[in-house]
Amino acid sequence: MRLEVITTVEEAGAERLDGRLVIAVDVLRATTTVVTALAHGVLGVWPVPSPAEAEALARSMEPGTCLRGGERGSFRLPGFDLGNSPLEYTAERVRGKHLILTTTNGTATIRRASCGSLAAVASLLNGHTVGTWAARQELDVVVLCAGTRGRFSLDDVLCAGQVTDALVEARHGAVELCDLAVAARQLYIHHRADLPGALRSTEHGRRLQTLGFSADVVYAAQAELWPVVPAYADGVVRLTSWGPGE
Amino acid sequence: MRLEVITTVEEAGAERLDGRLVIAVDVLRATTTVVTALAHGVLGVWPVPSPAEAEALARSMEPGTCLRGGERGSFRLPGFDLGNSPLEYTAERVRGKHLILTTTNGTATIRRASCGSLAAVASLLNGHTVGTWAARQELDVVVLCAGTRGRFSLDDVLCAGQVTDALVEARHGAVELCDLAVAARQLYIHHRADLPGALRSTEHGRRLQTLGFSADVVYAAQAELWPVVPAYADGVVRLTSWGPGE
Repeated sequence: MRLEVITTVEEAGAERLDGRLVIAVDVLRATTTVVTALAHGVLGVWPVPSPAEAEALARSMEPGTCLRGGERGSFRLPGFDLGNSPLEYTAERVRGKHLILTTTNGTATIRRASCGSLAAVASLLNGHTVGTWAARQELDVVVLCAGTRGRFSLDDVLCAGQVTDALVEARHGAVELCDLAVAARQLYIHHRADLPGALRSTEHGRRLQTLGFSADVVYAAQAELWPVVPAYADGVVRLTSWGPGE
Repeated sequence: MRLEVITTVEEAGAERLDGRLVIAVDVLRATTTVVTALAHGVLGVWPVPSPAEAEALARSMEPGTCLRGGERGSFRLPGFDLGNSPLEYTAERVRGKHLILTTTNGTATIRRASCGSLAAVASLLNGHTVGTWAARQELDVVVLCAGTRGRFSLDDVLCAGQVTDALVEARHGAVELCDLAVAARQLYIHHRADLPGALRSTEHGRRLQTLGFSADVVYAAQAELWPVVPAYADGVVRLTSWGPGE
């Protein structure tokens, strides 16, 4: 088994994903939001590229069964039910609904993951669980980071390191790592005692704090708050039955 | 002052280099070889894209004044005087000559650095000196890593971290770092007590060992063996007068 980390969705050509298990990561904030929504009882998350496609998909669903969420420039889209802050996705607001989500980078990253044989979604809230689960699949693994504005984003790379660390542990080291996976794991181990501090100091974390989303940054840093494995297939992210007890 | 690290030459669009001091890094092995050749008395290193261009440039020079060096697939080019192993570049062989060099990634990286306002060449042999020198220039800095086959290469990123660490120290922290520069510095600090071990464990380091170049990998890991600043301008890399004593 081999594990690769890719820093931005722009670098993820289909040839790098084909036949692999692809794990999509956008810690600030799309995959943190997806994991939270599912943990709070959303039936499925439908990542779509644009606000117009979100509207069209919502119109095709039974009235009252879905919510439209997402952002552009970090803020909620006009007319949408929810933004991209995971803290908005409380059980009261989302349980039993479908969520149609469109964000700047994150939804494109999840959709790109479908180029693999199997696709999952991770954030720091569930990266350890996803890594442990991935270790049991008989597939090479790619952790596909969203990145920020086409660049390396340390928040995503820390989650890639968390996934890598769990997978290496679960396989007792029997996995070949690319250089970036080695580096990501070292960075995660270096920072895991203070993940909130690490996320706050990233470029994206600093930007979100400036915009008033400090609470989201702290929330996103809670390792294993939700030990779940969300899988993406046929256009929708749903929780698998796999949990830490198995 | 801002410092950015770019992981591969493929990502280095002109807009990311324009107006900056660009430091080209290809630890295994091109910039290690360039630094060694200059430290051993080469008058100038001319990086060229192809073997044919190396031949043409050699023919334009006075007979006996230049050497042709370089590799494809890690091995010396047919008919060339030298390969890409820094250990071949002894003072006896190179002193007083010009060196025309063509390698798979490294020479393209050095040439790309000329998109900046000022361009320099670093390896682990001189990265601390280059970082300290860069701190005194009144320019934003880009450390441009060659990468390996278009991917993140930990050997280059460790050198980027060495340059970053020296620059941050010299400016007493008065520099804004991109996420990758922060990560590179942490990785360098983590590995600096055993740089030979770190380079040997990288994907590129392992490949070179398999091909019989273990001694090159160990040589390339000698931090500050040559405390020099090579600058690239008008198609040639030459030593500046700047050294650690200034």
